[in-house]
Amino acid sequence: MAIENAYYGQEGHGPYELIGIGDLQLEEGGTIKDCKLAVATFGKLNAAKDNAILISTWYSGTSKIMEQVYTGKGRALDPDKYFIAIINQIGNGLSTSPHNSPDPANFPKVRIGDDVRAQHKVLTERFKIDSLALVVGGSMGAQQTYEWAVRYPEMVKRAAPIAGTAKNTEHDFVFTETLNEAITTDPAWNGGNYKSSGDVAAGLKRQAKLWTVMGWSTQFFKEGRHRALGFANMQEFVDNFMTGYFAPMDANDLLAMAWKWQRGDVSRHTGGDLRAALARINAKTFVMPISHDMFFPPDDCQAEWRLIPHAEFRPIQSIDGHLALFGADPSAVAQIDKGLSELLATKV
Amino acid sequence: MAIENAYYGQEGHGPYELIGIGDLQLEEGGTIKDCKLAVATFGKLNAAKDNAILISTWYSGTSKIMEQVYTGKGRALDPDKYFIAIINQIGNGLSTSPHNSPDPANFPKVRIGDDVRAQHKVLTERFKIDSLALVVGGSMGAQQTYEWAVRYPEMVKRAAPIAGTAKNTEHDFVFTETLNEAITTDPAWNGGNYKSSGDVAAGLKRQAKLWTVMGWSTQFFKEGRHRALGFANMQEFVDNFMTGYFAPMDANDLLAMAWKWQRGDVSRHTGGDLRAALARINAKTFVMPISHDMFFPPDDCQAEWRLIPHAEFRPIQSIDGHLALFGADPSAVAQIDKGLSELLATKV
Repeated sequence: MAIENAYYGQEGHGPYELIGIGDLQLEEGGTIKDCKLAVATFGKLNAAKDNAILISTWYSGTSKIMEQVYTGKGRALDPDKYFIAIINQIGNGLSTSPHNSPDPANFPKVRIGDDVRAQHKVLTERFKIDSLALVVGGSMGAQQTYEWAVRYPEMVKRAAPIAGTAKNTEHDFVFTETLNEAITTDPAWNGGNYKSSGDVAAGLKRQAKLWTVMGWSTQFFKEGRHRALGFANMQEFVDNFMTGYFAPMDANDLLAMAWKWQRGDVSRHTGGDLRAALARINAKTFVMPISHDMFFPPDDCQAEWRLIPHAEFRPIQSIDGHLALFGADPSAVAQIDKGLSELLATKV
Repeated sequence: MAIENAYYGQEGHGPYELIGIGDLQLEEGGTIKDCKLAVATFGKLNAAKDNAILISTWYSGTSKIMEQVYTGKGRALDPDKYFIAIINQIGNGLSTSPHNSPDPANFPKVRIGDDVRAQHKVLTERFKIDSLALVVGGSMGAQQTYEWAVRYPEMVKRAAPIAGTAKNTEHDFVFTETLNEAITTDPAWNGGNYKSSGDVAAGLKRQAKLWTVMGWSTQFFKEGRHRALGFANMQEFVDNFMTGYFAPMDANDLLAMAWKWQRGDVSRHTGGDLRAALARINAKTFVMPISHDMFFPPDDCQAEWRLIPHAEFRPIQSIDGHLALFGADPSAVAQIDKGLSELLATKV
C-alpha cells in the first residue's frame, strides 16, 4: 500500500503533468506496471521541432528547483525561445516511486538507462520530438545526460552534464552507501515497511549531516557561507536547513534513487569500455564540474572529457561545492548560465 | 568493570611503559583517578637535556605507528641523535581509556588540554625535561602540538603540526559527529554498555566506511592506489583494510578521542581570540597540511599559519589525503622527513 506523503504533489512541486508510458521493462529484470513520469514543460515547440530542451533531475530534487534555479526569461534556458521539458526521474517522489506504488518496500531496482528509455518514450511518443537541442542536468541529472548522449547519439545535439560523471567512481559508490546506511540503520525504517516518512526522521537527519559534510566544502564553512545564508551557526544549519530539506522526503524513494546513482555507467553499452561508450557521443558537449565538488571532483570529470569527441571542459568555480547546484551562489549560477548560452549558440 | 580487549597491549603495540601521574583533574570537571600514560621512548637524553622530542598520537593511533613510520636511524627523528618520547593520548586504549577503566560507559570528558598537562607532568617530573627540541604530531597529534606550543611556549623550541588545526572547524566537527553516530546508532553499543568490542562490529564497520570516503581522497581511488596497496577492489579495501583496522578497537575509546578532537581549540586560553593564542607561540613552527586532506584542508591550516609568529607553511603533496599519515605513500613520508630535518636544523 502506498505511503502518504504531502511533500510530493502539485502544491509544492507543480504544475506538472503525469504522463503514463505503460509498463516499463527494467534492465535488472522486473517491470514497473503503468509507469508514470511527472513532466513540467515551459515554452512552445517550434514548427521545425528543433528547439526542445530536456532537463533531468538529481537525487532528491524535482522539476521545481530546476525550473526555479535554471530557467527563466533572459536566461540560457529561456521558455521564450525553447520548449523545455523537465522530466522527474523515477523514484523522485513525483514520478512513479516506491512511496506512491502498491508495495513501497519491494519497489524494483531501476537503472539510469530505464529512466532514459522512459523519458525517450515520453518525448518521442507524446511530444513527437526526435531531436533535442540540449540535454542538461546536474549530479544524477548529469548521469542521465551522459546516458542520453550515449544511448541516443543522433537525437542529442548538445549535452551539458553538470557536476556528475558518465561512470560512477568507486569512491562515490561508497559515499552513497554511507547515505543509504544512515537511513537503513534507523530501526524505524524497518526494511522499508514504515507508515510515514516521519517515522524515519532520525535516519533522514543522519543523512542530512552526511550531506552537510560532503555536499558543500570545507571552504564554504570556513568563509561562513552557512551564516551568510541566514543560519546563526552550524547546528542551526544542520537542524534547520539540511535536515529541513530531507525530513519531509520519503526514505524508500531516496534509497531507490541512490541505488541508481551508485551504478550509473554508460560503459554498460560497450562491455565496460568507457572510451568506446563516450566515443559514441555526437552531441557537442560541455563538461561542467564544480571546482570544490567533493564527490564529483573536476579531475574525475576531466578524465571523461578527454574521451568525448566534441567536448569542452568548462569547470564552474564555487566554494559551495556539489550543492552549488542548489543555486545559492549567484556566481555559480551565472557561470552555468553563461556556459549553457555558449553551448546553445554553438552550431551543430 | 573494564572491557577486555586484546588489541591494546604490549604484544601489538609495545614496548611501552605505563607511567602513573596520580589523579588528573579535568578541564570539564571530574577527575581521572590514578591516570596512566603509555610512553614509548627511544634514544638517550643528552647531558644538556636539549635533545628531547615529543611525538603525540592521533585518533585511533598508538605509539607503534608513530615509531614505525616516523622514527629510525638516518631519519629526521633519529634515536641516535634524539631522546624521543611518544606519549599515547588519553583514551587511545594504551593510556588510561574508557575500556580499561572501572566504568567504561561513564568515562569523563577529556580535553586536549588535559592530555597536554598530563604529558607535561610525565616529561618534567619523570624525565626531568624542561625543554623540547621538537613537538610533532599528526591530526589529533597536531592539535596536541598546537596546545603544547601555546600552553608552554618557553618549553617548546620547535613545533610541527601535521594535517591538523589549532582550532577545529565547524565542518570538521560535523564530520566527526557522523563518525560518532556510526557507532552510537549500533544498538549493540547500548550507551557504552557492551561486553566486548566485537559486539559493536556493525558500528565500527560503518565508521570504517566513512573513513574510506573522507580519509583518503577521490584521486586516491581514481588512480587505483587501493589496488596498488594489494586490494582487488573497493569492497575488499573497505572490508579488509579499513574495517580490519577499526574492528578490533574499542568503541568507547574511539568516542572519547572523538569528543576531544571535536573541541580542540587553543583559543580557550585567550577567551576565544585565536590570533592572541597563536601569538603566544615561541616555537619555530612548520605548518604541514596535506594537499588532498578533505577535512583539514591546506586552506584552513594556512589561515592559522598566518597568525603564528615564527612559522613556515610547508604543505605535503599526496593524493593519500589525510591518511597519508599512515605512511603508505613513500613520497609523503619523505616530504615530512625532509621538513622535520630542516626544522630540527633551524637554530632557535
